[in-house]
Amino acid sequence: MGRQELEYPREANNTVKRYPEKAKYELETIHKIINSAQIVHVAFNAPNGEGFPSILPMIGKMGSYERPSADIGDVLDLYLHGYVSSRIINLGRSASSDSSESSESPGLPVSISAASVDGIVLALTPNAHSYNFRSALLFGHATLVTDPQEKLYAMELVTNSVAPRRWQTSRTPPNAGEMASTSILRVKIRNGSAKVRVGGPNDSREDMENSAMREKVWAGVIPVHTVLGEAVPAAYNVAGDKMPEYLDEWRREENEENERYAREVSGLKYPGGKKEQAI
Amino acid sequence: MGRQELEYPREANNTVKRYPEKAKYELETIHKIINSAQIVHVAFNAPNGEGFPSILPMIGKMGSYERPSADIGDVLDLYLHGYVSSRIINLGRSASSDSSESSESPGLPVSISAASVDGIVLALTPNAHSYNFRSALLFGHATLVTDPQEKLYAMELVTNSVAPRRWQTSRTPPNAGEMASTSILRVKIRNGSAKVRVGGPNDSREDMENSAMREKVWAGVIPVHTVLGEAVPAAYNVAGDKMPEYLDEWRREENEENERYAREVSGLKYPGGKKEQAI
Repeated sequence: MGRQELEYPREANNTVKRYPEKAKYELETIHKIINSAQIVHVAFNAPNGEGFPSILPMIGKMGSYERPSADIGDVLDLYLHGYVSSRIINLGRSASSDSSESSESPGLPVSISAASVDGIVLALTPNAHSYNFRSALLFGHATLVTDPQEKLYAMELVTNSVAPRRWQTSRTPPNAGEMASTSILRVKIRNGSAKVRVGGPNDSREDMENSAMREKVWAGVIPVHTVLGEAVPAAYNVAGDKMPEYLDEWRREENEENERYAREVSGLKYPGGKKEQAI
Repeated sequence: MGRQELEYPREANNTVKRYPEKAKYELETIHKIINSAQIVHVAFNAPNGEGFPSILPMIGKMGSYERPSADIGDVLDLYLHGYVSSRIINLGRSASSDSSESSESPGLPVSISAASVDGIVLALTPNAHSYNFRSALLFGHATLVTDPQEKLYAMELVTNSVAPRRWQTSRTPPNAGEMASTSILRVKIRNGSAKVRVGGPNDSREDMENSAMREKVWAGVIPVHTVLGEAVPAAYNVAGDKMPEYLDEWRREENEENERYAREVSGLKYPGGKKEQAI
């Protein structure tokens, strides 16, 4: 029991400067925020971008092809599914390669963000309004997965993260055309960070002492959570009107857990001593 | 009636190449997706970033200080609230300036993305799984708002976008310290695009003809929407246990509309003729 909890090193690019009391560097915290997000945002520099980074919503899940049983708090890779032109990936590769055959190129530098809003924090004054939220950043180098076995591993990881057991309960394996048309990026993580805000509003002493104003302005939190609704069968579905029980159970559990978390953190006292603004 | 609907110009950086049939360039569509997002992701290049763009979750709302009554489909600026080091903004400014006193610098190039998942699309095979989603991208140049009147305009815009009428119903105006500690960025938009996916799964002819498999694999959509829950009063709230009615009414309307949209698009036939992958 009790192995030391791993943390990402604090370097210039990932050290949180604003509200550092909310910053977290543990791999487990960061990886869980990434995995719980339905989409992540991926930013990178494309050639001829004129200074504008590219930014894309993608599906991103933490995993390890070498050690598939690795814990969420271990050193992991991020697998990204979604469309990134292979031209860009290849340019990233050649730009960072020293053109020696034997050198491994690190890949395209990518920055990844996942964020969820858990509550709207209504304070006595707009300046102290905020969101309860969980956000995570990862920085790393992306390369295209070319090994078919690793690609299959990542496709199963991504599929079963979007809906559990779906890889095992739908038509697999992918055929040759599906394998060829699917792009998976593996991001070797360099570092990362997370920020989490929980609790009620945190107003200034001055506003707290203005009792006439406090009688008028309602202060509190509107919890926010995502709901997976009742399934709608496809027009061509012939496998029963109702979604399979294992999926419906997962849906209900997700909803309960998301609602519970948003409600629980809404009722907490804001833990920081510092005045709070919006994110 | 019937002014032509404005579109952003299709330039190299914003023309959608993957699934172009889902691409949209109308200002109204793009601006509405941005405004409906509780957070947007903002990417830009900071000095010494070693090729990694910075990426931050922020609050972003479309507005026009010069023409506050402008329609959502008009040419608008994006106002961003959240922490961006003024050092970075100033560096962006000087880098793009030609050092002549009279020249206006365009500001820091920023890329903005907003995305919402509206449904998990379960197809017969993992390859045809997808999300229903709405996503929007904007590209523009960001500068710090320094005019106090414009700053107040943007603070009210942002506050009332997070919770309606909150500016009018909480303690305003901000005091000098609050004005000084609040950073607002104005982004002059250069162009943008949006992508929207609606409808049920879209499987291949080959899978559709495999009737033994189709009996086993359930196909359809799990609608996804955000819920604003029952408000939790702050420990120090003295303005009644219940949230004011105008806020509760807004909360219920938002929930109904979000649920309706996710459910409605889940039941549609996928409109594209092309095979669909995840985003």
